[in-house]
Amino acid sequence: MKPCAAILTIGDELILGDRVDTNGPWLSRTLLEHGIKTSERCSVSDSIPAISKAIIRLAKLNSIVFVTGGLGPTEDDRTTEALADALGEHLVHDDDALASIEKWFEARGLVRPPQNDIQAMRPISSEWIENKAGTAPGLLATIGNCTVVCLPGPPSELQTMLATILPDVTAPIDCTGPVCTTEVRAWGMPESVAGEKIAAFMQLQEPRVSILMGKEGIVARVTSADASLVKETVSRIQELWSPWAFGTNEATLASSIGKLLVGGSVSTAESCTAGLLCDAFANTPGASKWFVGGWVTYANEMKMSQLGVAGALIDSAGAVSAEVARAMSEGAVACSGSLAAVSTTGIAGPTGGTIRKPLGTVFIGCTVHGVTTVREFRFTGTRNEVRQRATFSALQMLRFRVLDLDVPTMCWQYGEVFA
Amino acid sequence: MKPCAAILTIGDELILGDRVDTNGPWLSRTLLEHGIKTSERCSVSDSIPAISKAIIRLAKLNSIVFVTGGLGPTEDDRTTEALADALGEHLVHDDDALASIEKWFEARGLVRPPQNDIQAMRPISSEWIENKAGTAPGLLATIGNCTVVCLPGPPSELQTMLATILPDVTAPIDCTGPVCTTEVRAWGMPESVAGEKIAAFMQLQEPRVSILMGKEGIVARVTSADASLVKETVSRIQELWSPWAFGTNEATLASSIGKLLVGGSVSTAESCTAGLLCDAFANTPGASKWFVGGWVTYANEMKMSQLGVAGALIDSAGAVSAEVARAMSEGAVACSGSLAAVSTTGIAGPTGGTIRKPLGTVFIGCTVHGVTTVREFRFTGTRNEVRQRATFSALQMLRFRVLDLDVPTMCWQYGEVFA
Repeated sequence: MKPCAAILTIGDELILGDRVDTNGPWLSRTLLEHGIKTSERCSVSDSIPAISKAIIRLAKLNSIVFVTGGLGPTEDDRTTEALADALGEHLVHDDDALASIEKWFEARGLVRPPQNDIQAMRPISSEWIENKAGTAPGLLATIGNCTVVCLPGPPSELQTMLATILPDVTAPIDCTGPVCTTEVRAWGMPESVAGEKIAAFMQLQEPRVSILMGKEGIVARVTSADASLVKETVSRIQELWSPWAFGTNEATLASSIGKLLVGGSVSTAESCTAGLLCDAFANTPGASKWFVGGWVTYANEMKMSQLGVAGALIDSAGAVSAEVARAMSEGAVACSGSLAAVSTTGIAGPTGGTIRKPLGTVFIGCTVHGVTTVREFRFTGTRNEVRQRATFSALQMLRFRVLDLDVPTMCWQYGEVFA
Repeated sequence: MKPCAAILTIGDELILGDRVDTNGPWLSRTLLEHGIKTSERCSVSDSIPAISKAIIRLAKLNSIVFVTGGLGPTEDDRTTEALADALGEHLVHDDDALASIEKWFEARGLVRPPQNDIQAMRPISSEWIENKAGTAPGLLATIGNCTVVCLPGPPSELQTMLATILPDVTAPIDCTGPVCTTEVRAWGMPESVAGEKIAAFMQLQEPRVSILMGKEGIVARVTSADASLVKETVSRIQELWSPWAFGTNEATLASSIGKLLVGGSVSTAESCTAGLLCDAFANTPGASKWFVGGWVTYANEMKMSQLGVAGALIDSAGAVSAEVARAMSEGAVACSGSLAAVSTTGIAGPTGGTIRKPLGTVFIGCTVHGVTTVREFRFTGTRNEVRQRATFSALQMLRFRVLDLDVPTMCWQYGEVFA
């Protein structure tokens, strides 16, 4: 039997539908990159019998079972007891595990609350796994021929712990060898156009090419055991998606702009996106080298007092206008001395729309080397989606300008047919 | 046995982690509103044996099983065959089902492509369910005492079809009746403390009380068929979690601050959170009434030129210091004329930490009616988590100040024992 993994995610919040499980998909992708295919993913509630039964069932069918969640210090964290039940064992108190929890609190100048003691309990035949990102140790046990790995639920703790233990737990399994996956990221063209451009690739069995639409844009995922085939396919897709594709894997529009700025700097002047542009830049490690900062001029008085936008202009053109977007972007350059600036002013909703400027109307301004480009958009979606789409469109506009390209007609741009 | 449902979602894209399953959670929520609890949610790949085995297993344990996906016209849609396999039956061609597919295409002035014929096949003992939003009919079958309902994967088709059939399929099941759920939201106390305060409630069967830790804080979810019992329990938990609890359900720290400001206004001065504070306020509909805007002073020059922070102070105390946090917050009030302001300066990582100020060190300043409070924190997690935790902690500090409370020792605050 080919080695395969099962993933068991624990929590009433998953079962009741109040939380969408993102750990499961992340685990499946990460395991696939290591040549381990997921056979099944399963969610059960915070109930000892339910968790225990699921562990026993999945351990019979798989070489490895990953359990996530239920390791916290509270009443409804039952994974440790459930694992003991599945193993038919009692719990013991592990002094080393407790010491590691102590250490975690001490490092933060804190005293460990007594309730965290229970996180140092483990089934007698199991081992504990250090948690470098939180207090809940993981657990490693064996049922028959199956390795059972219990990981904490918080994504940063889960991901840090998996990275440290994956080599050990996969060593005994004869994996198909690492599978290589690369994602190509793009923004600004409609999904239908993106799909058409790479339709031929999507019919292939090898490499496997799929398109995902996320709130951060369009992604083509290329997967194969043949790394050079993936590399080749990725560069073909980047050509076909030019100029919309801005990078691969962890790349963001902001990070690609940062790379292009070489010595230049950028500032922001936001109204409706109110901080999302700054956030996008600040999320890029090393941004402090080229991102000087920005203004969120939500009130008109702030647009005037901080960015020097003329009150008369706001009165005549309106705060949501091409003229004000231009004045904000140029004001940001003037006040910060940055090489480039980007500005947004619009109506995110849920109220405030007019016939001429309906909800979703956003003007984006972009100044590079003293030259300003302004575009009008009509974004669809909720208040939050409008603000996010405006942010990514502004970043893509800035990227085009920094690349010295004419800004092409973009998705959601007002009054023009997408070429 | 209480009636319970299982949900089986089909698709390689789910198993490989290319897509996060949102149908499952939506189904669980919708069923719960009709008094049907989900016992388990499970995802398998587009493989007939895998789907068939899962249907048989879940049908043994549940009164009803919902299967979603795999009803399309393409090669990798295998749910119909898998259901036949689970029933031990062969497939028959259903003329009525085909007619309904014909109708769907005709209504859109289209000719039915031949490959859609296979969507009119069904296991002999099953019934087809009309799809008013697409071409794939659903399937209704019985295995032992369990009803198996196969629904299409596209959310709009799934949701339209469920609405039409839910009364019929739930009629035979003796449901507990509609269930009421309310969430209490809190920020700033450790999870262990939050759990201890309401431990007694979490042992109850009725109402069901569970704790979730999310990136937006600590949530207690109270669920029961008895709405008044939920209401009562929620207000008890709000008392026990005072002053940390800031609202229920859709409430956010920013919206609760907005409600408290009555006529007052707020501005922000951010360094490491770089826009997240603005974003939190701007996400609140109606924020333009009380949120004037803010500065992201990422570069020291911006702190000096925009907020009037003395260069000498930055040189002596350092940009990441209590003194600069205070000067930024007071500068924001001075420059914007707002009643209140909140500021952040810190080291989000991944680099830039020192022995005295390690990664995660953040100083938060908060000025209300001319009085400034500053606190030092040591946040854990990734760069992004540090920035988010700093943002919510800053908002909670501001909320305490606007409530005229002494700011208590908060989670992640440096060097103090949590009371």
